[in-house]
Amino acid sequence: MRVGFVGIGAMGQGMAESLLRAGHEVTVWNRTRERAEPLRDQGASVAATPAEAARTGTVLTMLSDDRAVEAVEGGPDGIRAGLPRGGLHVSLSTLSPGTVARLAEEHAGAGQVLVAAPVFGRPDAAAAAKLSVVAAGPTEAIERARPLLEAIGQRLFVIGSDPAQASLVKLAGNFMITAVIEALGEALALVGKAGVDRERFLEVMTETLFSAPVYKIYGRALLEARFSPPGFKLPLGAKDNRLFLHAGEHHQVPLPLASLIRDRMLGALARGYGELDWAVIGHLAAEEAGEPELAAKS
Amino acid sequence: MRVGFVGIGAMGQGMAESLLRAGHEVTVWNRTRERAEPLRDQGASVAATPAEAARTGTVLTMLSDDRAVEAVEGGPDGIRAGLPRGGLHVSLSTLSPGTVARLAEEHAGAGQVLVAAPVFGRPDAAAAAKLSVVAAGPTEAIERARPLLEAIGQRLFVIGSDPAQASLVKLAGNFMITAVIEALGEALALVGKAGVDRERFLEVMTETLFSAPVYKIYGRALLEARFSPPGFKLPLGAKDNRLFLHAGEHHQVPLPLASLIRDRMLGALARGYGELDWAVIGHLAAEEAGEPELAAKS
Amino acid sequence: MRVGFVGIGAMGQGMAESLLRAGHEVTVWNRTRERAEPLRDQGASVAATPAEAARTGTVLTMLSDDRAVEAVEGGPDGIRAGLPRGGLHVSLSTLSPGTVARLAEEHAGAGQVLVAAPVFGRPDAAAAAKLSVVAAGPTEAIERARPLLEAIGQRLFVIGSDPAQASLVKLAGNFMITAVIEALGEALALVGKAGVDRERFLEVMTETLFSAPVYKIYGRALLEARFSPPGFKLPLGAKDNRLFLHAGEHHQVPLPLASLIRDRMLGALARGYGELDWAVIGHLAAEEAGEPELAAKS
Amino acid sequence: MRVGFVGIGAMGQGMAESLLRAGHEVTVWNRTRERAEPLRDQGASVAATPAEAARTGTVLTMLSDDRAVEAVEGGPDGIRAGLPRGGLHVSLSTLSPGTVARLAEEHAGAGQVLVAAPVFGRPDAAAAAKLSVVAAGPTEAIERARPLLEAIGQRLFVIGSDPAQASLVKLAGNFMITAVIEALGEALALVGKAGVDRERFLEVMTETLFSAPVYKIYGRALLEARFSPPGFKLPLGAKDNRLFLHAGEHHQVPLPLASLIRDRMLGALARGYGELDWAVIGHLAAEEAGEPELAAKS
Repeated sequence: MRVGFVGIGAMGQGMAESLLRAGHEVTVWNRTRERAEPLRDQGASVAATPAEAARTGTVLTMLSDDRAVEAVEGGPDGIRAGLPRGGLHVSLSTLSPGTVARLAEEHAGAGQVLVAAPVFGRPDAAAAAKLSVVAAGPTEAIERARPLLEAIGQRLFVIGSDPAQASLVKLAGNFMITAVIEALGEALALVGKAGVDRERFLEVMTETLFSAPVYKIYGRALLEARFSPPGFKLPLGAKDNRLFLHAGEHHQVPLPLASLIRDRMLGALARGYGELDWAVIGHLAAEEAGEPELAAKS
Repeated sequence: MRVGFVGIGAMGQGMAESLLRAGHEVTVWNRTRERAEPLRDQGASVAATPAEAARTGTVLTMLSDDRAVEAVEGGPDGIRAGLPRGGLHVSLSTLSPGTVARLAEEHAGAGQVLVAAPVFGRPDAAAAAKLSVVAAGPTEAIERARPLLEAIGQRLFVIGSDPAQASLVKLAGNFMITAVIEALGEALALVGKAGVDRERFLEVMTETLFSAPVYKIYGRALLEARFSPPGFKLPLGAKDNRLFLHAGEHHQVPLPLASLIRDRMLGALARGYGELDWAVIGHLAAEEAGEPELAAKS
Repeated sequence: MRVGFVGIGAMGQGMAESLLRAGHEVTVWNRTRERAEPLRDQGASVAATPAEAARTGTVLTMLSDDRAVEAVEGGPDGIRAGLPRGGLHVSLSTLSPGTVARLAEEHAGAGQVLVAAPVFGRPDAAAAAKLSVVAAGPTEAIERARPLLEAIGQRLFVIGSDPAQASLVKLAGNFMITAVIEALGEALALVGKAGVDRERFLEVMTETLFSAPVYKIYGRALLEARFSPPGFKLPLGAKDNRLFLHAGEHHQVPLPLASLIRDRMLGALARGYGELDWAVIGHLAAEEAGEPELAAKS
Repeated sequence: MRVGFVGIGAMGQGMAESLLRAGHEVTVWNRTRERAEPLRDQGASVAATPAEAARTGTVLTMLSDDRAVEAVEGGPDGIRAGLPRGGLHVSLSTLSPGTVARLAEEHAGAGQVLVAAPVFGRPDAAAAAKLSVVAAGPTEAIERARPLLEAIGQRLFVIGSDPAQASLVKLAGNFMITAVIEALGEALALVGKAGVDRERFLEVMTETLFSAPVYKIYGRALLEARFSPPGFKLPLGAKDNRLFLHAGEHHQVPLPLASLIRDRMLGALARGYGELDWAVIGHLAAEEAGEPELAAKS
C-alpha cells in the first residue's frame, strides 16, 4: 500500500520502519530533512512537503502536539492540499479532543477523512512494532487503515466512530499512568523514611497486586532516582495533563487527582526538571519528605 | 504442628481451614463461638478462651483492628497469659505499626515472640489458600512460622526483622489500591460523560498498560456501580487509610494522594455508603460530575 | 472630559453613571442598545459603534471576558479604528494577563496606549462609586486616566507600569476571595454537623479575627444557603479561576488551593448551579458532609 | 476572687498577670517552678501542686496540649483531687473536643464543673488582656467565670452549654487562619514570580478586601520570610490541624483544604522548620515555585 508518513521523531522513526518492513511503499517527510534521509536505505522515498507525502492518498502523522499537526495540515504545502478527495489521514499523535474534532471537520470539508489512532508505548515499543493502538473514526476508514495500524502495533482497539474519543482515551490512559507514579512516589517516600527496604517493598508490590509492567518500570526509576535519558519528557506529560484537565473543564467533571498531578508537574518544572522523564514527579514526594533535590537535573 | 487460631471471620475461616487441610492440629477461638463450631467437623478443637488457643505454643490471630487484637492479648484469659515462654504469636491482621511495635515489646517482656504477617487477598483468596503474605520479625521466628504461612498463602515475602515494617508495607499496598480506584473513578467519570463507551475503555486499559487484576476487579465494580456485597467494607478501608496517614505524620511525610482518598472516604461515609465495598469511593467522581447518588446504599 | 464607555452591564452602568455625576461628557455603547438608552436621561450620548465611542479620544471598557473585549477592539467599527493616535483605552474588565499584554501591544502599534484598571467590588459598589481600582500602565497615561478612575472608585492603587500586572493582581484578589469561601464552607460544615450554632460561630469569627467584610458577606450567604440573585455568577468566577491557574502554569507556580477551587467550581457547575452566585462553591463542603443538594438551583 | 492558675507559659503568664491586676487573689502552679516564682512580686502565691491551686475552688488552666492537661488533672496531686465539690475548672487551652468532653464528664463525676474557654490571640495580646475568649459550659458556671474571663480578654463570646463546642470553634478559627496563610502564600508566590511588586500587592489587598489584621500580620511575615521568633510554633499549629481533621473524621465531614494544610505542615516539619512560626507553611508555595529553601531554619 502506498502511504505517506509525516513526523520522523523518536516514535515516528520506528513506526515508519515497521511500515517498510511490512512491505508498504512509504514516502516520508520531516521538518528537519536529515532525520528522514536515513530511511531511504530501508526503501523509503523522502518528500519535499507534507502535501507530497499526502498525495499517496493515505498519510499518517506522528507529531509532538496540536500546534505541530496544525503546522503541517494547512497551506499549499500542507496535508489537506495534497490529499486527494477520498484520501485518508491517520493521526497517531496525542492531541486534544477539540483539535481532533476540528481536523476531522476540515478534512470532511475537503472530501477527506480522518482517523485518530494514538498509541501507547515508548520508542522501544515503536521500534519493535509492539505499540497498542487506540483508533476511532468512521468504520470504513478504520478498515482501510487497519493493515497500517497492525503493522505498527501488536494490539489494535477500535473505540468508536468519533475520532475525538480516541484522543480522550489516550489522555485518560496517560492520566492513569501518572496516578501510578504518584502512588509509587508517596508509598516509597513513606516506607523508605520508615526504614523499610524500598527495593524489597517494590518487589512485594509488583509480584503481588501490582503486576502490570508500568509499576515495574516506574517503580525502578523512582527507586534509583534515575530519570535520564527520558522515555517521555516531563513537558510532554504536562501537556497531556493539561489537555485532560481541559476536557474535564469542558465536560464539567472535577478531577482532583489530575489536579494534584498538575501541581506536581509545575513543581518539577519549577525545580528545573524539564529535561527529565515525567516519572520525576514521583520523586517530589521524597523531596517534600526531606530528601535533597536531584543534583544533576538534566 | 499444634497451633491456635484466634478470629474466625470471613478471612480467618478460610485460613483456619487451610491450616487443617495442611495437616496441622488447630485449636480455634472466636468471640462469638457459633462461628467457630463448624470447624470441628474439619477436625479443629474449639477453645474457651484466647489463652487456651495460645497454650499450643503457637497462635495465629486474624482480627479486624488494633482494638480487637488488644482485646484478646491481655488479661488472664488473653494470649499473653496462655502462651508459654518461647511461644510464638503470628499476627495476620492489618494493624497500625505502632500497635505492632507495642505488642512485640510486650511479648518480648514475657519471653515470647511476635511475627507480623499481614496478608493481601480477599475472602475467596483466603478460602483457596491463595493469599500473599508479607512477614516481618526475628528470622528464627519467621522460620518457625513458615510452614503455617505457606499453608495459608501462595506467596510469602519476608520484609525484614522489625514486625512493624510488615504492617506499614500492608498499609502502603492498600493505599496503592485506593489510588487505582480513584484513578479509575476519575477516568471513567470523564470518558463516560464525554460519550465514550466505558466498558470498551476499561477493556483497552486492562488489556494494555493496566493488566493487573486489581484494575479489572475495581474497574468492573465501578462500571456496574456494584459495591455490594462488599469484599472489603468501606469503614475498614477508612481505618487503613487513617493508619497510613498517621504513619506519614509520624515520619513527617506529606501524602497528598492519601489525603485526597481520606476525604473521599469521609464523603462516602457521610452519604451513607458505610455498608458498601470501599470501591464506592471511586463512584464519587461520577457523582461530583452530576451522576445521581446511589439509590440502594447498602 | 470627553470619554467613551463601552459595556453597560450590571457593573458598567453604575460606572457610567458615576462618570456622568462627576461632570464628564460620556458617550456610551452597548451590544444590546436598549441597555444603553436609559443613560440618555442622565446626559449620555449613545454611540452606534465602539469606534464612535472611542473617537472621543479616551475610552473605558467594562466587559465580561477576553472574548467580549476582543470583539469590540478590532475591525472597522472597533475601538482601535476609532481611537485617534495618542488616544487612551482604559480597560476595567478582568482579563487574562496574556490578553492584556496583547491589547497593549496592538494599541502601541497604532500609536495608542492601554491602561488596565480592573476593579474590586460588586454592582452595588459600582453604583455608589465605591469600587477599588487597581491600575497599571505608563505613568503618564495613568495620570490622564486618574480623574476618571477616581470618579468610579473610592480607592485607586497604581500597581506598576505593565498593564498585565494589574490583571494578575485582580485575579489574585479573586482567588483570595475563593479561599475565604472555601474556608468558611468547610468550617461551617463541620461546626454545624457537630451541633454548634452556626450563626453564633460566624459572629465570633467576624467580630474577632476575620473582621473583613468579605467574611461577613460570604459567611451570611453560606449560613442562609442563599446564592440568588447572584452578585457574581459562578461561570465568571470559574473563568477567573481558570485565568489564575493559567498564569500559574505560565510562570510554573503550583497552586494547590486554586486547584481545589477549580474542582469545586466544576462540581458546582455539574450540579446545575451555574446561575447562582459563586459563593455556592462553599456549600459543597456541606453537601459532601451529607446535607441535601440545593433544591432551587437557579 | 480566689483562683488558682495552672500553666505559666508564654500565654499563661500574661493571663495570670491580668487576673492579678484585676484584683483577684491568684495561686499559681507551673511544672518548672522557676517560671512561676516571679509572679510572687505581683502578689501571687505559688502552689506546690496543681491540687493546691485547685483548692481555691476555681482553677484556670493554660497548657500546651491534651496530654499536658491530663497530666495535671488526675492523681492525688491533681486538679480533680484538690478542687472541692462544686468547684470550677476553666480550661483555657486549645484541646481536642473529645478530651474536653471526657474532662467535663470526669469533673461531673466528682461534683465539679468544667467550662472550656479557649482564647484567640498571641502572647502580646495575653499580656495586654486583649484576648478574645470563646466559652462554653453550663450557663451558671460561665457566669461564675465571667469576671475572670473578662479580666484576661477584651471580648467574651459564649458559644453554648457544651464545653466541647468551644474547643471545636477554636480549632475552626485556627483552621481559617491557616487558610489565610495558604492563600497569601500562593498569591504572593505567583505575583512575585510574575514580577509584580509583592509589597504593593499586599498593600492593595489589605487596604481593600482583606482588611482584617490577620492578613497584615501573616502577609508581612511572608513578604519578609521572617518566621522567627515564633508567635505560634509550627508543631502547635500542626497539633491543632490534626485535631480539626480528627473532628472532621468523627463527624464524617471531608475537609480538603484542611487536608492540604496538613500536608503543608508535614512538609515544613520535614524541611526542618519545626522551630519557626506556623506562617512558614505559606512559604512552601514559593519554594515549590523555585525559591530556595530558608537558610536559617530556626
